[in-house]
Amino acid sequence: MVSPWEPAVDRARTRASKREAVLRVAAQMFNEKGFHATSLDEVAERLNITKPTLYYYVKNKDEILFECVNIGLQMLQDAIQQVGASGGRAIDKLVAGMQQYVRIVTMDFGMCVIRVGEDPLPPESQRKLRRFKAALDQEFRELIRLGIAEGSIASCDPKIAAFTLAGALSWIGRWYQPGGPLRPEQIADQCIGLLIHGLQIPMPTPVATATPLSTLQPTRSPT
Amino acid sequence: MVSPWEPAVDRARTRASKREAVLRVAAQMFNEKGFHATSLDEVAERLNITKPTLYYYVKNKDEILFECVNIGLQMLQDAIQQVGASGGRAIDKLVAGMQQYVRIVTMDFGMCVIRVGEDPLPPESQRKLRRFKAALDQEFRELIRLGIAEGSIASCDPKIAAFTLAGALSWIGRWYQPGGPLRPEQIADQCIGLLIHGLQIPMPTPVATATPLSTLQPTRSPT
Repeated sequence: MVSPWEPAVDRARTRASKREAVLRVAAQMFNEKGFHATSLDEVAERLNITKPTLYYYVKNKDEILFECVNIGLQMLQDAIQQVGASGGRAIDKLVAGMQQYVRIVTMDFGMCVIRVGEDPLPPESQRKLRRFKAALDQEFRELIRLGIAEGSIASCDPKIAAFTLAGALSWIGRWYQPGGPLRPEQIADQCIGLLIHGLQIPMPTPVATATPLSTLQPTRSPT
Repeated sequence: MVSPWEPAVDRARTRASKREAVLRVAAQMFNEKGFHATSLDEVAERLNITKPTLYYYVKNKDEILFECVNIGLQMLQDAIQQVGASGGRAIDKLVAGMQQYVRIVTMDFGMCVIRVGEDPLPPESQRKLRRFKAALDQEFRELIRLGIAEGSIASCDPKIAAFTLAGALSWIGRWYQPGGPLRPEQIADQCIGLLIHGLQIPMPTPVATATPLSTLQPTRSPT
């Protein structure tokens, strides 16, 4: 006879994916109407479960927010570290890191980092999440420092520059409307274009000079 | 005999300035520890008054926050409109407007716009303050549009560009530490420098050319 219960390993997997669904729906509601204005009754309702069932997956609203922000920060951290570990110039890594940043802050957990963040949490949780944020900030500063060293970024204070980038990119998580007229990639292109141009050393534009006729290749018919 | 009461007009003035002190101290505390974590008992304590005295000046915590954000937005609005009404190029007005923006978001009420904002307030108050913010956003977009028209700003989507500026500048209100090592003017210089350079059309750097000797003016002794 086949057991009507799933094997333990599948049960653990099911539980983990259901817990993630709880966190994700909560993140969406926090992002839409704010942390304080969202009740766990509403979260349970949107998931079609009872509140006791919800409590099987999470302890309380604070734990939910901590996990949402933690997942969002982890995604940002992973993306930046992956970019940092790739080869190439620091400025190209910076661009790639910024693209990832926009992608993540326009998604549920990343948006929750920006729209809600750690402020409503108790001091100990705040401290943990802020250490995480500080580490992310350091990754950006380091790429800017390396960009200055390689000559692709104009001399500047890496702290203020990193905050300028983080501010502009994080703001997207505030004003971006999922399903609105602007896609995240469009926003990222324009916003990152402006910021990267701002960071770069002004490049001399090529001066249009008449090419001496003697250096032109003789035209050949394409056969 | 001289009346022990102030004339009515002075009493009104005193009341207004005391009310502003209540709002300012509340704004400082909201900025330091958050809106929800600040109690009116603590605000009263910091002002050396009783809670009933506090209630003589303000109705409740929501009213205080509304007023603080309202004052901050009014300061931003006034500054941008003053800059907009001045003569000169749009890009210069934009720089001046951004400098004012940084100055204000590093002050008590302006910082409260950024760190707390309208989110904790009831829907009607939120709507009022958001209309105010939208008007401010439009002022920035208009200056960017004019900058593109006058040829000082590279072609871009004024909406995304305005949000990029507002994001970077507003972020300063979040991370700026009053009394910390960086002064608001220093932060403004670097951050605005980066953003304005990013907005501008790349300028051809002057090519060093040898001046033909024939065009040089004969040197004259200065007498």
